Amino acid sequence: MIKDSKIPAPTIERLALYSRPLENLLKSGTDLISSEKLAYLCDVSSAQVRKDLAYFGEFGIRGVGYNTEALLNEIKNILATNREWTLCIVGMGNLGSAIVENENFKKMGYKFVAAFDVDPEKIGKTLPCGLIIESLSKAGKLVQSLHIEIGVVTTPPSGAQKVSDLLMDAGVKAILNFTSFQVSAPACCVVENVDFTMKLENLAYHLGRSQSFIS
Amino acid sequence: MIKDSKIPAPTIERLALYSRPLENLLKSGTDLISSEKLAYLCDVSSAQVRKDLAYFGEFGIRGVGYNTEALLNEIKNILATNREWTLCIVGMGNLGSAIVENENFKKMGYKFVAAFDVDPEKIGKTLPCGLIIESLSKAGKLVQSLHIEIGVVTTPPSGAQKVSDLLMDAGVKAILNFTSFQVSAPACCVVENVDFTMKLENLAYHLGRSQSFIS
Repeated sequence: MIKDSKIPAPTIERLALYSRPLENLLKSGTDLISSEKLAYLCDVSSAQVRKDLAYFGEFGIRGVGYNTEALLNEIKNILATNREWTLCIVGMGNLGSAIVENENFKKMGYKFVAAFDVDPEKIGKTLPCGLIIESLSKAGKLVQSLHIEIGVVTTPPSGAQKVSDLLMDAGVKAILNFTSFQVSAPACCVVENVDFTMKLENLAYHLGRSQSFIS
Repeated sequence: MIKDSKIPAPTIERLALYSRPLENLLKSGTDLISSEKLAYLCDVSSAQVRKDLAYFGEFGIRGVGYNTEALLNEIKNILATNREWTLCIVGMGNLGSAIVENENFKKMGYKFVAAFDVDPEKIGKTLPCGLIIESLSKAGKLVQSLHIEIGVVTTPPSGAQKVSDLLMDAGVKAILNFTSFQVSAPACCVVENVDFTMKLENLAYHLGRSQSFIS
């Protein structure tokens, strides 16, 4: 089905975006959706929707739209979200605690099987999700025995690279980094850096411009 | 300086990305930086760096590079991050608590001046940053009296639209939404939806592909 192996990263991100309303439409029994409707629900242009989906072959029927279930299944196939992934998380402060309990991760097949910290006061505590916080010194062993594929990093920024290296050395194939430090990875691994403040800068840019138009 | 008012959103996001290593270079006394070096530090191509910066006029000197300080100042000007912004946050669970204490927000001029919740057990408590959690019923008044420009939403997803509407009605011009619910906004306002699981889908896509290449 995939026409081109060089699919742009923004398209991949939008596929994840498209899957959200499709899940809801399917639940509410809506069998067909037009690119216009999907575009409206996701706040992108309908031309963008059609262009993105065209990377993966012909889904739609001209003048009718897309079959909701088929489209969602195809997106899940492409994103490899039609399976379960095993995750660990390092750094059990407020952010780590929020992420490990996030209902959406579970619902979407992202399963946390280990949580680590270096703080002796945190190690040994049971989280609401049932996991016991382990010492980071056990990470190497547990990544291997639990076949952990993705590591989530919510440590202070100064520890992010060291922790990521440790996890990747142990066999983790991907890092989701929530610290402000830009983690780099060897070619065998993938890193996604999530920076909250960057989203704010996006907002500030738009606000700055709208205010200068007014004045 | 700005050549084109239609600057693509990914360029704006990358400008924020570029500013991170520039801050560090400036601190360490590096006066000049090449597009190659900046590209390397940000994990994008140098052609992309040059293309992005070209939207805003001619910064660089061919064969020499960019003046670090001038480039950083120009980016801050464009992103309107060379000023302070006033923020409030609604939903003081683990995620809200993590965000309101985030050192980077403060450092970059994003100042939280109010925190709200609906839980009577949380209202009245003092946060480590010094703010007292207020009842959401006071949001309308406080948004006006404190001139709050940006609202951060860390409520459960079911409350996200209602809370955003309440903040925008009160005068907030932008919403940073951390819930899995896609908040929509009237034309006068800007919304950035931050979805953690979407970043994971990006990772899963790359992992799924690399694994299918191996097998």
